[in-house]
Amino acid sequence: MKIGIIGGGAVGLLCAYYLSSRHHVTVFTRRQEQTDAINARGIRLVKDGKEFNAECGAAAGVASGYDLLIATVKQHQLSGVLPSLMNIKATNVLFLQNGMGHIHDIEHWHTDHSLYVGTVEHGAVRKSDTAVEHTGIGAVKWSTFRGSRPEALENIFCGMHSDFPVYYETDWYRLLTGKLIINVCINPLTALLRVKNGELLSCAAYKEYMRKVFEEAEAILRLDDSDEAWNRVCGVCRQTKNNHSSMLVDVMAGRQTEADAIIGYLVKEAGNRGLKAVHLPFLYGSIKALEGN
Amino acid sequence: MKIGIIGGGAVGLLCAYYLSSRHHVTVFTRRQEQTDAINARGIRLVKDGKEFNAECGAAAGVASGYDLLIATVKQHQLSGVLPSLMNIKATNVLFLQNGMGHIHDIEHWHTDHSLYVGTVEHGAVRKSDTAVEHTGIGAVKWSTFRGSRPEALENIFCGMHSDFPVYYETDWYRLLTGKLIINVCINPLTALLRVKNGELLSCAAYKEYMRKVFEEAEAILRLDDSDEAWNRVCGVCRQTKNNHSSMLVDVMAGRQTEADAIIGYLVKEAGNRGLKAVHLPFLYGSIKALEGN
Repeated sequence: MKIGIIGGGAVGLLCAYYLSSRHHVTVFTRRQEQTDAINARGIRLVKDGKEFNAECGAAAGVASGYDLLIATVKQHQLSGVLPSLMNIKATNVLFLQNGMGHIHDIEHWHTDHSLYVGTVEHGAVRKSDTAVEHTGIGAVKWSTFRGSRPEALENIFCGMHSDFPVYYETDWYRLLTGKLIINVCINPLTALLRVKNGELLSCAAYKEYMRKVFEEAEAILRLDDSDEAWNRVCGVCRQTKNNHSSMLVDVMAGRQTEADAIIGYLVKEAGNRGLKAVHLPFLYGSIKALEGN
Repeated sequence: MKIGIIGGGAVGLLCAYYLSSRHHVTVFTRRQEQTDAINARGIRLVKDGKEFNAECGAAAGVASGYDLLIATVKQHQLSGVLPSLMNIKATNVLFLQNGMGHIHDIEHWHTDHSLYVGTVEHGAVRKSDTAVEHTGIGAVKWSTFRGSRPEALENIFCGMHSDFPVYYETDWYRLLTGKLIINVCINPLTALLRVKNGELLSCAAYKEYMRKVFEEAEAILRLDDSDEAWNRVCGVCRQTKNNHSSMLVDVMAGRQTEADAIIGYLVKEAGNRGLKAVHLPFLYGSIKALEGN
């Protein structure tokens, strides 16, 4: 099959490498330099100090003729991608953004494409325009979103390498909210407090504050099973207790965070539906203020 | 009378200038350079672009023989000052720190001195080792704290310049908590959100969050009149709507903030008395994290 990957960041290169084992993969990048480099050298995967290579094509703009397009750019870059998808023939498009901000971008999007959404739980660090290090083995999970059926993608994703499992989930909302509730509880607090994930549990006041954030978020998301979700949040804090959250790392590096995708979505949802939110707007404002600094 | 001012910062120089009109004033500083400069040139006050001079002495260490000593150093510098006050003859000592962190330092202090506490509502900016600009005219308010009687100081403070009024208040706890509740509501939030004071009212979510901080703080402080205190907090936000709070200014300048004196006191009080606090520990942790950055 022919697969197009939109975006040549860590997730894009990781997907491109693993999908290349069974498919013809093209990476769509914005920079001619990266396009040329991938066309010349393919993609290199670094894992446990070993290196692996995959042949892969690259091109400058999104084109027709692909069985699946996977959008791997960050949510705030999606506004540059959606218009270019308007000019190509209807196909399958899978969105792999963090958070849920992109749902507001695509839910009212008029398009003939079959839309899918998914999550990426791998650790991956881009090393160069053509190389990615696979630092943590997880999974890609995907679901149908609109105008789509699972059969169209199941065939594409079967038989992937065991280090890159791909799972189908029946309920996209459950899939994305299940990840969002964890991110919104852990990321902004650790970024503001400059603490490792485990400290949100070990300091009683921080845990209580996290609980207040959780309660506000779960009311907006209308989670089915609140206890299960809270246990999962605490479980991730414990399992990753020595880690710095991605938002903390972004804040320390002076980079733009994923505050819009993660907290901004919830603040907007609360506003749209007339729900009261106090902690989430405060956290959102504080993180955006840190970014501006 | 003989007055000793401990600390040659903005508040110390301001007090030294105005008190010099009726008293013999000595400024106790830590730096020999500043001591020499004050002894050579006195103190210069800048107000509305005009300059005024006062003769004034300076010395390196605190000594006996003063009718009143005024401690104007920041709360976190007090631990270096208290031991030196142990070695001199009993006199009147007035503490003019922001916040209430210093109350924990002096409440169990074994001393024969007569203790007073007070607040400074002037705007003052130190321009050099000997010069201070009086940017906002307010008042000094003081009260007896322990082993002290108002008569001892009333005579010293009478007849001050109309730009430097000094008022006696009967209840030290009411005096300090009345100022602390305002600082704890406005300062940490504006510093985290990087907003001017007025935005805490104009953004509904920020106002609601400020209300939560207020409720936690007023329960710890056991304020008599909660409604009156909340109205005062909102009134100060309105009156200073275009101002940056001192904590925001400190954070922007990468300086140590007065988080310990303002929020730290409340967090410690809550801990000592087994009261639950969630927002104050979170704000305290976040501001301390920003300082460390």
